[in-house]
Amino acid sequence: MEKELSNVLPESLKGKIVSADEAASWFENGMTLGLSGFTRAGDAKAVPLALVERAKTDPFKVNVYTGASLGSDIDKLMSEQGLIAKRLPYQTDNTIRKKINQGDVLYIDQHLSHTAELVRAGVLPEIDFAIVEAVAITEDGMIIPTTSVGNSPIFVQKAKNVIVELNTNLPKELVGVHDIYLPEKQGERKPIPLTNSSDRIGKIGIPVEFDRIKGIVLTTETDSPSTIVQPDEETQTMANHLMSFLRKEIEAGRLDKTLAPLQIGVGSVANAVLHGMLTSEFHDLEVYSEVLQDAVFDLIDAGKVKVASATSITLSEEKGNEVYGNFEKYKDKLILRPQEISNYPEIVRRLGTISINTALEVDIYGNVNSTHVSGTKMMNGIGGSGDFARNARLTVFVTKSVAKGGNISSIVPFVSHVDHTEHDVDVIVTEQGYADLRGLAPRERAELIIENCAHPMYKEQLKDYYFEALTQGGQTPHILEKAFSFHINFAKNGTMLEKVPVTN
Amino acid sequence: MEKELSNVLPESLKGKIVSADEAASWFENGMTLGLSGFTRAGDAKAVPLALVERAKTDPFKVNVYTGASLGSDIDKLMSEQGLIAKRLPYQTDNTIRKKINQGDVLYIDQHLSHTAELVRAGVLPEIDFAIVEAVAITEDGMIIPTTSVGNSPIFVQKAKNVIVELNTNLPKELVGVHDIYLPEKQGERKPIPLTNSSDRIGKIGIPVEFDRIKGIVLTTETDSPSTIVQPDEETQTMANHLMSFLRKEIEAGRLDKTLAPLQIGVGSVANAVLHGMLTSEFHDLEVYSEVLQDAVFDLIDAGKVKVASATSITLSEEKGNEVYGNFEKYKDKLILRPQEISNYPEIVRRLGTISINTALEVDIYGNVNSTHVSGTKMMNGIGGSGDFARNARLTVFVTKSVAKGGNISSIVPFVSHVDHTEHDVDVIVTEQGYADLRGLAPRERAELIIENCAHPMYKEQLKDYYFEALTQGGQTPHILEKAFSFHINFAKNGTMLEKVPVTN
Repeated sequence: MEKELSNVLPESLKGKIVSADEAASWFENGMTLGLSGFTRAGDAKAVPLALVERAKTDPFKVNVYTGASLGSDIDKLMSEQGLIAKRLPYQTDNTIRKKINQGDVLYIDQHLSHTAELVRAGVLPEIDFAIVEAVAITEDGMIIPTTSVGNSPIFVQKAKNVIVELNTNLPKELVGVHDIYLPEKQGERKPIPLTNSSDRIGKIGIPVEFDRIKGIVLTTETDSPSTIVQPDEETQTMANHLMSFLRKEIEAGRLDKTLAPLQIGVGSVANAVLHGMLTSEFHDLEVYSEVLQDAVFDLIDAGKVKVASATSITLSEEKGNEVYGNFEKYKDKLILRPQEISNYPEIVRRLGTISINTALEVDIYGNVNSTHVSGTKMMNGIGGSGDFARNARLTVFVTKSVAKGGNISSIVPFVSHVDHTEHDVDVIVTEQGYADLRGLAPRERAELIIENCAHPMYKEQLKDYYFEALTQGGQTPHILEKAFSFHINFAKNGTMLEKVPVTN
Repeated sequence: MEKELSNVLPESLKGKIVSADEAASWFENGMTLGLSGFTRAGDAKAVPLALVERAKTDPFKVNVYTGASLGSDIDKLMSEQGLIAKRLPYQTDNTIRKKINQGDVLYIDQHLSHTAELVRAGVLPEIDFAIVEAVAITEDGMIIPTTSVGNSPIFVQKAKNVIVELNTNLPKELVGVHDIYLPEKQGERKPIPLTNSSDRIGKIGIPVEFDRIKGIVLTTETDSPSTIVQPDEETQTMANHLMSFLRKEIEAGRLDKTLAPLQIGVGSVANAVLHGMLTSEFHDLEVYSEVLQDAVFDLIDAGKVKVASATSITLSEEKGNEVYGNFEKYKDKLILRPQEISNYPEIVRRLGTISINTALEVDIYGNVNSTHVSGTKMMNGIGGSGDFARNARLTVFVTKSVAKGGNISSIVPFVSHVDHTEHDVDVIVTEQGYADLRGLAPRERAELIIENCAHPMYKEQLKDYYFEALTQGGQTPHILEKAFSFHINFAKNGTMLEKVPVTN
């Protein structure tokens, strides 16, 4: 162990090694913690779990800031223990979700590029402890993150104290994959000098003065694997529609077969789209995204992807073994950046990404709800979808046209919560087809969305609403009394269908 | 005339001088026109009006793209004549508004920084004629715009033909005030090299090959003056609340007395805020905005403003005479840029503007409606508010707490249209007070907005809604059956008040 450690930990820091329990004993009620971790990758694991243990006999509360969602059941265990007062900017865990929706945990659902800005500007309560997972600390004073970067750079820069979880179970080859660039304060900031997905603009690690490191905890826990969702027939059809759309863009001369830097959200449609590209004519693809999933590595294997830039690598167990067992094979194509850079509006707009994200529901005018079930209950959060949707060259939202066996229509008269306004949505894709909304006024959009994207079982009902609304006039015709009738019907009758078909 | 012209028009172009009627005869049914003009400043006037005349006997339709709203009744006269098929990205005229809401004019309400991007990418139908007002055409091939830049550079660059309205009634000193920078295509774009409001990064005019100029029309018409709205007691109170908020930011060390580049929307509160600064301790202010109104020039006169960058200058008749009569006095402090630069997310985020815009209504969770009356009828458009709100250092929305003599509450349970989501809104100001929403979860926001911003006559009603919604739980508690009850009540009873107070 000693020998191995000397490669990844400067001699002068060895005295700072402590147990997770000891590190957890430093926290006080009301403190704010900034944890590494983005989409179950690279999270601080040992210290938060030790804190859960401590809280079993010594109840208290902390605010928890992260990159995005955590693995290793940390959100679950911390919230079960009543440890979390305020949580931001993103989560995907069942238990904390319940606590959030009960009002027991205060949750700030934030654009993922915004958190670092608010920390930098001193708008959010100060971070007492940054706790970040690292694969190494270098002699020249840098913390090398592991499988994600997330908000760790700004947490380390601004926290009063830093705790490093040094994970000795990850390949040393991870050193060199990160590109850490921290923008200056607003008003003193220079242009971010990134003009290609493959550009390296920063350092290989997070600069830290060693006297700010209060403790180093040695760990060997690996990331929670992603749960792969295999494409079903409908996601495959959606992927095909999207590919048809992209081919039309090529025909129109607006894209070529290398497309444009791809940002693709997490999920089964994303996987289906990426897998569809495996056997397509598209080539020399670039990925400028948040999360690199299994499918991106399949595309690298197939020689389809030139470069993949993101803020985290989130893989299934099988793919993880393959990738981290042969990391040198992938390394020169990968770049992991802080999430404020992977999602930075300046860069998204400059590169002109094609951004494909999942909608929870879409309304007939093209407004998108990404977060709230029936307008009230939080699902996960807006994540980076807004950073990309507003600034991308092409903003695509995908959703199956119905859910719950047809009892929910994903196309509704008025979304019950708005995360993305009609101004920011270019294309809607369902398994029924796609609606290209660019250059269309709201009335044109409504007709196209109902015609191309709604499920046949809901088309008439949506048209009835729209035609009645038309009699009232307006740029965006609505009947406010009936705008949420689909949702209200579902709450009352278990279905959004007005006339439930009689079964013989 | 000849002699005067030689200063502003190259000899080789004199043969292109035509009458407005002749220029208007070139248009064909179904064409798309790109007109200069932003907030009643610098609009193409003579040719559109000649087109109106022509259409009286020869009915046809064109699509009209502009910078923003037009003066000289052009939107009114063109739409009265049934000339406009599709209109984008912004308008403020009563007549066209009516046509839009009747569905007679198709209107695309766009982020003002987005239009140029869509034209550049070839997403919108091609522009047949760019018609731009100019103060001069230079020997080395540049069109010098007049009192606004707007979208003229991209219109000139992409249109099949260019018509210049050469206005000989404006001071030649306008030459040199513009800074024309056109970003490259997405994917080939470099960082926009602007790091200070005062930076000049482009040319003094819009480059054009002379053979693309199909005609030059000589004009002398001046811009329509702005209608000054004098602050009333309530707008003054709102301005005071906002100044208190800014002082607290200084106390907290997040700003100093030079504040940050200011973007202030058009209107009476904006004027009140700017006038409040006249006698304040704030100094060496920078303006990085869309429109420069009277108050900005008062601040320049008072030595309070170092530099004012925008895309248009829109003044009252009196102020206009003063400013254009002494333009040399102001010139070194002024820069007029293309609207995609004045509003470009990259720059707004880099500079970290303080952005103050007007809301039509706000909901208890901080979502903002800027555009639609009762969710259906278009007022003006989103304009640049979204470009700034998403990217500013501080995003402030202002609105009086009630309208129509108290029958409308500007604070409602659920806005009837969402232009800005809670993710993008930092501070709400009404004459009742301000709510600083930063770092707050939705339930905290609701309590603060109701308490600090709602009018006392609506507080109980809003609390009743919120407390009932709380019993349902959720991250963003709502009762969808009652979410629009305020609006429905207003439509039915002429007031949003549930219990109309009994008058003795």
